[in-house]
Amino acid sequence: MLKGKDILNAYQFSAEELNLIMNTAAQFEKRVKEGEAIKNMEGMVVASLFFEPSTRTRLSFETAINRVGAKVISMASASSSSTAKGESLADTIRTIDGYVDAIAMRHPMKGSAQIAADVAVHPIINGGDGAGQHPTQALLDIYTIRKEKGYLGGHTVTFLGDLKYGRTVHSLGYFMQLYGNNMIFASPESLKMPEEITQDLRKRGAQIEETGDVEAALAKSDIVYVTRVQGERFDDPAEYEKVKGSYIVDMDLISKAKPGITILHPLPRVDEIAAEVDDYAGAAYFRQAHNGLYIRMALLALVTGRV
Amino acid sequence: MLKGKDILNAYQFSAEELNLIMNTAAQFEKRVKEGEAIKNMEGMVVASLFFEPSTRTRLSFETAINRVGAKVISMASASSSSTAKGESLADTIRTIDGYVDAIAMRHPMKGSAQIAADVAVHPIINGGDGAGQHPTQALLDIYTIRKEKGYLGGHTVTFLGDLKYGRTVHSLGYFMQLYGNNMIFASPESLKMPEEITQDLRKRGAQIEETGDVEAALAKSDIVYVTRVQGERFDDPAEYEKVKGSYIVDMDLISKAKPGITILHPLPRVDEIAAEVDDYAGAAYFRQAHNGLYIRMALLALVTGRV
Amino acid sequence: MLKGKDILNAYQFSAEELNLIMNTAAQFEKRVKEGEAIKNMEGMVVASLFFEPSTRTRLSFETAINRVGAKVISMASASSSSTAKGESLADTIRTIDGYVDAIAMRHPMKGSAQIAADVAVHPIINGGDGAGQHPTQALLDIYTIRKEKGYLGGHTVTFLGDLKYGRTVHSLGYFMQLYGNNMIFASPESLKMPEEITQDLRKRGAQIEETGDVEAALAKSDIVYVTRVQGERFDDPAEYEKVKGSYIVDMDLISKAKPGITILHPLPRVDEIAAEVDDYAGAAYFRQAHNGLYIRMALLALVTGRV
Repeated sequence: MLKGKDILNAYQFSAEELNLIMNTAAQFEKRVKEGEAIKNMEGMVVASLFFEPSTRTRLSFETAINRVGAKVISMASASSSSTAKGESLADTIRTIDGYVDAIAMRHPMKGSAQIAADVAVHPIINGGDGAGQHPTQALLDIYTIRKEKGYLGGHTVTFLGDLKYGRTVHSLGYFMQLYGNNMIFASPESLKMPEEITQDLRKRGAQIEETGDVEAALAKSDIVYVTRVQGERFDDPAEYEKVKGSYIVDMDLISKAKPGITILHPLPRVDEIAAEVDDYAGAAYFRQAHNGLYIRMALLALVTGRV
Repeated sequence: MLKGKDILNAYQFSAEELNLIMNTAAQFEKRVKEGEAIKNMEGMVVASLFFEPSTRTRLSFETAINRVGAKVISMASASSSSTAKGESLADTIRTIDGYVDAIAMRHPMKGSAQIAADVAVHPIINGGDGAGQHPTQALLDIYTIRKEKGYLGGHTVTFLGDLKYGRTVHSLGYFMQLYGNNMIFASPESLKMPEEITQDLRKRGAQIEETGDVEAALAKSDIVYVTRVQGERFDDPAEYEKVKGSYIVDMDLISKAKPGITILHPLPRVDEIAAEVDDYAGAAYFRQAHNGLYIRMALLALVTGRV
Repeated sequence: MLKGKDILNAYQFSAEELNLIMNTAAQFEKRVKEGEAIKNMEGMVVASLFFEPSTRTRLSFETAINRVGAKVISMASASSSSTAKGESLADTIRTIDGYVDAIAMRHPMKGSAQIAADVAVHPIINGGDGAGQHPTQALLDIYTIRKEKGYLGGHTVTFLGDLKYGRTVHSLGYFMQLYGNNMIFASPESLKMPEEITQDLRKRGAQIEETGDVEAALAKSDIVYVTRVQGERFDDPAEYEKVKGSYIVDMDLISKAKPGITILHPLPRVDEIAAEVDDYAGAAYFRQAHNGLYIRMALLALVTGRV
């Protein structure tokens, strides 16, 4: 169903495709945990091209490539690439595309993954294109909810922190609506979810509450998705100082939340979740990161037709 | 025939060896395109040592190492190497040589590949040694001509652009003479082919015409080999500005050229070939880059005796 | 015996474990030299995380991972890592730990390997933690002595050069005492072995002589372990200039040493061993570096239970 397709954004999938991806991921997870030397993509080579460095995402992709039986060629940063000699992204992709069977890429420019897909013969998997999309993160988020909660719909989900710049919450909002969850957006005023996204989700039928009262939000939430407030997003350092500590998830806050609340975070986490929370049973953020491995294995096998 | 040998320069090969390399490359190309998981070099490890960064060439070598069944250890730049602690190149090579079955390397210093070959027990493949040699480029150039044209001799080949600093055209000139082609050197006066090279080629029997009239040259050429004029080669920026746009290959120029003309370029290309040319059937430069993969697979298998 | 264990320091091993490691290394060495495509760790992935760059050690680990049949994910430097975004080392390790079957790491902070081991489910192999430990170096040192001399005890070993900051000589001193060797510490006054280490070794029963007379030391030594005096360790450049050339091992010095003396060095070497010595039969330092490969293969297979 996905053979030969590019994975460019979180909105491209049918419900059937989402199920296929998650079910394929679950199969790979089982096989990895049984210690199988998986050979689905034996004989294939996949390029991992990070024009913008991101060790976490790069190593997740490269583990996935290795674990699904393919081999990797890797570019950890663009500083040393032909780009520095003035080559266009399209030319770089055309060249690498001739070496490999698929390309996973991250690039700081919004729309770059589409440019790559336009010229590449082989499938492109977008590992983040600047302010644009990061579909594998969105997919691992819902895969994690399905694993942690057993099913994907009917939950109340609080989105906490930077909802303005956090591209992962934008995609997740779309998925949460798709599966029929209620959403609470809890953020400082200056970091609110962009109005057009909130309106779009509501138009699609989403139940959304916006609040600054975190305790009240968590008291009725099954899941809280915490994001990091990133200093580099702020023009005014004073504004950053004001909001950065505004939400800290600690055991005191969790004790007032709905029992059994699941805590997600796209990582890296800095101070927004206290270390003491790591031992809480519902702290799922490291499991969430690990789930990315299986989602990426599934996508690689599906787009290359090696399921 | 090449087992245990180092690949250091374009001039080291007999005609028989050149045929063997190209025929071996053709076999690997066929096997890769059939999707075979090639295991010729199974159990072997090859070092890809780029003391000078070059993503394009490094990824081509590393794909070749992977596709021929070996494993890679990779150094993408020398900044973090023992070199920074004052270690000699010979010592670095001696150490790595003890880990692996072959070494592919690029180094900014002319003669560095020979230094490496002098101390290494295992074969060295020179991926470019500064102003020196870049034999795998020269080999993929002739392999491309053989594929595009069907045979290697009797063509008229125009070399266009920077013929002074472009090491690839120096090697290619040698090969073109060897296979009995006529050459036209078309360049700005300040970027002319070095006189000693032109004289040497003529002494060997080459038919060479030198001109500044690109249209006239292409009107009688079967192949044009375009090179990039690199700003960093010029001491005087004004001189660079004067020549950099002097030759641009666009569809207008091609419409005046000999029908069916093949366009080659070692890439990366900046402005010297217009994007519109990419759709022209004779635009072979991306296929040329892809051919590098098979040439490098052939060399690796040949020097390690795993053909 | 070592399955599931972390390799954190040179002092953690029983004599039985040291024998097991060396015997396992010897088996892998034999199998590698016979050209076997070793599959002990097939299906496993190992992370090679160098938060502090070290091409030599990284490539040795990555070759070992490849040669023992596992696959590698690699971080060559921390500049591009989540660490730069403020993530704690523990969080980084927790995330990567979920991808892989073992982690080899180098980190500039003393104690970092222990921090990693505390949070990781999978085994950690310490590839150097700043001023702390570097156990694989210590193990390859004794493996080399066993190979060069045939046995590990009863030798007289001179430690030459920087004994103050050279962490490798600290671990080696411990092992030399353990196997019943006599030691001579020959260094400039300002680079003497730290008093607490010398006292501790003596308390354990070690025979230690301290001297500035290198010729006299080597005249009665079976082995000399040379270290590099590193300029960056000195606050006062004048002091560095004074001591840096104080010991140079050349053929003149070797001609006055005990016949058959074995010369070791952890590399990289700068000027402290003259190039002419490389041809001397007892110059074992490149063989020593190569032995690191087999020691690392052995440790990887042992801690993952794939011997």
